[in-house]
Formats: sequence, C-alpha cells, structure tokens
Amino acid sequence: MLIATPQSMHFEEALPLQSGASLRAYDLSYETYGSLNADRSNAVLICHALNASHHVAGVYEGQPKSEGWWDTMIGPGKPVDTDHFFVIGVNNLGSCFGSTGPMQTNPDTGKIYGADFPVVTVQDWVDAQARLMDALGVQTLAAVMGGSLGGMQALSWTLQHPNRVRHAVVVASAPNLTAENIAFNEVARRAIVTDPDFCEGHYAEHGVLPKRGLRIARMIGHITYLSDDVMNEKFGRKQAPTLVASRTTLPPEGALRLQPGKAGSAAPAGRGNANALQATPFKYSTQEIEFQIESYLRYQGDKFSEYFDANTYLLITRALDYFDPAAACGGDLSAALKHATAQFLLVSFTTDWRFAPARSREIVKALLDNQIDVSYAEIDAPHGHDAFLLEDPRYMGVVRSYFQSRVAP
Amino acid sequence: MLIATPQSMHFEEALPLQSGASLRAYDLSYETYGSLNADRSNAVLICHALNASHHVAGVYEGQPKSEGWWDTMIGPGKPVDTDHFFVIGVNNLGSCFGSTGPMQTNPDTGKIYGADFPVVTVQDWVDAQARLMDALGVQTLAAVMGGSLGGMQALSWTLQHPNRVRHAVVVASAPNLTAENIAFNEVARRAIVTDPDFCEGHYAEHGVLPKRGLRIARMIGHITYLSDDVMNEKFGRKQAPTLVASRTTLPPEGALRLQPGKAGSAAPAGRGNANALQATPFKYSTQEIEFQIESYLRYQGDKFSEYFDANTYLLITRALDYFDPAAACGGDLSAALKHATAQFLLVSFTTDWRFAPARSREIVKALLDNQIDVSYAEIDAPHGHDAFLLEDPRYMGVVRSYFQSRVAP
Repeated sequence: MLIATPQSMHFEEALPLQSGASLRAYDLSYETYGSLNADRSNAVLICHALNASHHVAGVYEGQPKSEGWWDTMIGPGKPVDTDHFFVIGVNNLGSCFGSTGPMQTNPDTGKIYGADFPVVTVQDWVDAQARLMDALGVQTLAAVMGGSLGGMQALSWTLQHPNRVRHAVVVASAPNLTAENIAFNEVARRAIVTDPDFCEGHYAEHGVLPKRGLRIARMIGHITYLSDDVMNEKFGRKQAPTLVASRTTLPPEGALRLQPGKAGSAAPAGRGNANALQATPFKYSTQEIEFQIESYLRYQGDKFSEYFDANTYLLITRALDYFDPAAACGGDLSAALKHATAQFLLVSFTTDWRFAPARSREIVKALLDNQIDVSYAEIDAPHGHDAFLLEDPRYMGVVRSYFQSRVAP
Repeated sequence: MLIATPQSMHFEEALPLQSGASLRAYDLSYETYGSLNADRSNAVLICHALNASHHVAGVYEGQPKSEGWWDTMIGPGKPVDTDHFFVIGVNNLGSCFGSTGPMQTNPDTGKIYGADFPVVTVQDWVDAQARLMDALGVQTLAAVMGGSLGGMQALSWTLQHPNRVRHAVVVASAPNLTAENIAFNEVARRAIVTDPDFCEGHYAEHGVLPKRGLRIARMIGHITYLSDDVMNEKFGRKQAPTLVASRTTLPPEGALRLQPGKAGSAAPAGRGNANALQATPFKYSTQEIEFQIESYLRYQGDKFSEYFDANTYLLITRALDYFDPAAACGGDLSAALKHATAQFLLVSFTTDWRFAPARSREIVKALLDNQIDVSYAEIDAPHGHDAFLLEDPRYMGVVRSYFQSRVAP
C-alpha cells in the first residue's frame, strides 16, 4: 500500500493574479509519489477539480480508509504507475485543504481572509503550480493530467508553459462552461451567499458557517455529476423508510466512497427497501423523506457542509466560469491552441451531461486543426460526470496504454 | 380579444384526500371561455402545471397585458377554439391564486393554514375538478388537457373517471417522475425549508416570507425548463455589464413573457452586450453578475419570490413526486391504463430533458398495449420543456387538427 505524506512549500515572492490583484506570499500543500529519475524526465502533475485536494493517491499512515481521490488511477502498478513516474498532487490556491485560501490569515490584516481572498483563475493556479515545479526541480513535466476542472488546468498548462509539458491528459473536461454549466454554478453560489450565516463571506469572524447554503450547493452539484440513467438504476422511485435507516445502511462499496476531497463521490443509498413497488405507504409530507434519492442528496449535502469552505466553493466555481482560452482569440479555439506543443490524450464519457463528449471533441478538433498529436477515447459508461473518478476497465486501459506507450521516458 | 372573468365556487361537502386527511370545505377559482352547447358535449377542461392558475386564456377587462398562460393555444379561432368549445380553467387546491390553499384561513383553527394545509395529490385535484364539473353541469368532458403536471392530471382523469372523458390531451408530460426529477424538486424544497424565514411553514404568522429559498427554487426550476441549446443560443457566455443594465433592457418579446401564472416563462436577457467575445473586462467577483445567464436567473428568481407562495411550491412539487399510476399495478403502466376508455393525443418536444419524449412514448406504448386510440406527435423544437407554452406552428397545428377532426362534437 502506498503511504502518502502531505507536504507544504512556502513561496515568498508575490504571485500576480489574472484579476490584477496579487497574492503577497502563500503556501501550497502537495504530495509526491514515486521518485524523480536522474534526468528529471518522469514527473507527472495531477490537477484537482472542485472539491478535491493534493491527496491524490495512497493512504495516510495508520489510516487505511484515507485513500486519495484518484487512488484507482495512480499508484504502484496502476495506470499512472508510481513505480515509473514521479507523481505530484497539489492543492490549489483558494482551496480549503492546506494551501493558502480564504480560511487562512491575511498577512496584510492579521484577520482571516474570508471573502477578501482574491479571485483566482485556472491560469493563476497553473502559474502557482509552475513555481512549485521549479522548487521541486522539475523543468519539464512528462505529463500534466486532470479530470473536469483539473482537465482545464492541464489544457491551460500547454498554453501557458508549452515548453514545460510533453503530454496533457484531459479527462471529462471542456474548453469552457456552457450557459447551463454557469447557471448551475450561479444557483449554488446564490444558495451560499443568501444564507444569513454567510455574513458577506466573513462568517469565520462571526463564529458561524453557512451550512444551509453549502448543503444546497452540494445537492445541486451532485445531480449534475450523475447521469439520469445511473440515478434511475441506483435510486429510481425507491422509497426510503426513514432517514436514520437509510443512513445507517450505507454500504462501504468499492469505488463509491464518501470522504472529504472526493469530487462527486456517489455512495449507494440504503438497500433496506429495495423494491419500492411493493409500496411502503407514503408519509404525505413535504419535508420528511419519501424517496431514497432524497435521503442520498441530503446525506451528501450534510457531509459536504461539514468539511468544505463556502468561500472556496464560490472561488472555485468562479474559476470554472472564467476559464475560456478561446476568448482571447475571438472564440476561435483552434487559434487559441496554435502554440501548444504537447501531445494530448482526451477522454470523455458518453453519459456525462455536465461536460458532454461533444465538448471534448471540440478540443480534439481544435488540436487536429493545428496538426497536434491527439488521442481521444469516448468511454461508454453509465455513471455520468462521476465516471472520471471510477474504475472503469476500458477507461483505465486507455490511460495505462497511453502512459506506457507514449508518456514513458 | 377574449375577456376573461375569474369566478369562484364554494364546496361545502368535505373532500377526502389520498393521504387519509380531508378538506372540510373549500373554494375553487375558475374561468370559462365560450359556451356550453345544448347537449353539454363541448366542454374542455384545462389543467395547470406548477405555477400557473385558472387564468388560461384571454385578458382581464382593462388589463391588455394580462394574457392567460395558455393564451397562444386557447381562444377564438385558436387550436382549442372557444367559438366551438366551452373551455374551463381551474386553479388547483393548495395553489396560491384563489383556490383554497396554504395562504388561506383554516376554518378549524381560524389561523392561516401555512404548513398545516394537507398534502394534496394529482388524484385529489382531479376529484375536486370533477365536483366542479358536476356543479357546472358537465357530466362528460369532450377533452381534458394539460402540459407537464397538467398532463398528469389529464391522464389521471382517464383512470379515475373513465366514463367522463372522451379525449385526453397530454403534452410534455410523463407517467411519473424519474429520480433526477425528484432530485431537482427536493433541492428546491430544501432551499425553501432551510430558509430561516420559512419558520416551519408558518411564516405568515411571523410576518416574513422565505424569499431567499423561493428564489433558489425558481432558479433551479428554470434551468430544467430550458434546453442546453436554447440557453447557449440565448445567453451562451455573453457578459452582462451590470445587473441594472440587463434588467432595464429586457425586451417585451413575443411568447416569452414574464408574468405571474406562467409556468417557466423564458424572457430573453438584455441584449446590450450581445457579443461577449469582444470581452468586457471581468469584475473578478464571486457575487457580482458576470454573465447574462446569471442576470436572467436572478431576475426570474426575484420576480417569482414576489408572487408565489412557498408552501404551495412544496405542495405542488410533492404532488409531482407522488404521481405514479403504475405503482398500484406493481409498476406495470399497461396494466394501470387498462380501464381507460378515452382517446388520447400525446405531444412531446425533442429537447425537453425534464420530461423527455421517451417518457411520453412509455404512455403511448402502454395505451397501444390496451388497444386504446392514441395519436402521438414528437415536435422538433429547441426550447426544452418550456416549448409546451410557446407558439410552435407544428405543435399548434397538431393540436388544432386533433380538436377539429377528433374532439369536435
């Protein structure tokens, strides 16, 4: 079993941000797995999505259930094989898992940043990650890889630092958000900021937490992570006898774990009342739980609101909204990708309606327009956007082959 | 121009509800258009969806902009032609537009019902509507018609009162909600009930209104009413200069009106900054509006929270969740529809992802299994679920033909 050790790096030099602001000094939490080879050519950077962290693979000493969020993908003998690659996970600025973010103290004021933490973008994260690579002695990455928002960072690396990336692996991602994507983010943000405990983002000073808003935000998110099909298969119209019963019967199944740092983990609901068609009588209540899907969503919302920071949620959804490399070229993605020199693997999932395969194909097309080397796999998987975190053998096989035959130094 | 006159009918006899509770006495608001013919064979009942009312067609005297929510469909010379049919619109129990509901006084306590209003179901509404038909002297309906939740009521009429319905017109509907449908309802409900101003549903007694929750609920609803395509076409990634500017530039366009009683009306956003790719600088803010889609959703949420009742929102979404005529037959919809004797027209819209065409086809299949006469039109329209309220010529043509050639007495 891979044992992970969280580390932290302090950066004294101010980081200029895309907004025009700058971050005076900051820390980045990170983990590394495997060893950097002699010619420093085997480093792979993993970028995380909305609510994950630097804890990508392995477990912490003495905590056997603390698997990293992409532990199915990364480790000894896994598709991204840490026996061959030196893998780096990093927590992004503005997040709430150790790197400098809104929960930490603003050195300019001595108070917790809260809503005063500057808005950061995908480009800012990539710049901060590049400094970490400098500090780790990694001039050129064998690969940069991420799913969803992480895939946007991988793509942005190839544009911001084209000579420092040999391969970009962009999974379940998109060249920008659609209006519907932004709409879901906006509703989640409004749920948070209209929670009276939000206190204009300075809830920490007031000793409260906008948990109501965070719960709603997470519930909305969850709906968009799952496909209609998998929701129907897993929950359908099955009734949930009581909240207590369905929470206590949550089985600790395979890839579907519930833990901090998991983007969109999909835990199965209780099975106590699997056959809803032998109808339990309804309670005829607007507030009690009648269906298992309700129990599942409330459970996810409650868990999330216990460990995630509301300001971080706002910042990261905004970074998603802003990402749009084509904007600088009048919306022409092909023109925007002209100077990328990396080789690419893109992966999408048929039932992902958050970042549908068509969005990945836009990137593939723009790369082909520039004669850039790109492999593309569209995986027929039922799990929606969540599929990028799950252990689908075809998906794993594609990534394994790519790393073995293309990325391997 | 058709002039509408709201009416009200009082019912003294208690209405037994599906939950086991009963409603002691109640009023139903309704409107009628056209005239009942001598043999009382030309009555058409229109059932409303989530946030509409009995004001289906025409305008109120002296209020030229007060068009009913299905005024494109119903009126003199329109697809449901009030020169030939006697059309009845009725506000459902539990709603907030005049019929007995949570905003009214509970005769048992002398207090406003609030959260004490009993949970009502599609079946209960149909029973109440049947009593109104009795009172209006209508034994047999030429047709019962509705879209979305209204279509569920039309379907339920054919099962609860098979001998009182000659035709059922079921538009953009479904035989029950999917897990994803329930999930969206649940998030909307949680947003309402976790608003501190909800006061456990007795906000009226406390002199407050849970507007924050209602806003979020409506924003979520809106996303599901529109297709991804129409959102991208209408809003895409267009930037909104300021909230004020985009609100004042809302044009009063055609079928896309903003008014109480419209289910999912889709008003276009400001056009002041139509070409977002000539990028306005971003504000780099998590709370200010950056994109037009945000402005649009906030506007819709604000408007809705001014006129709609939170307890009604809870009740009506719950009625949607509960509706499932197949449940009584172990999930076998064909068995459930066995005793229907009406003839059917079903209409669905290709881009409706809330109640997708596949859901209408389930009903069509179950009707065919029973050799029941059914016509089905799948309309290629870009507007998502909202399409059922819009004036698509193919859609209007199908309904017109059906009423002229099949329903006409």
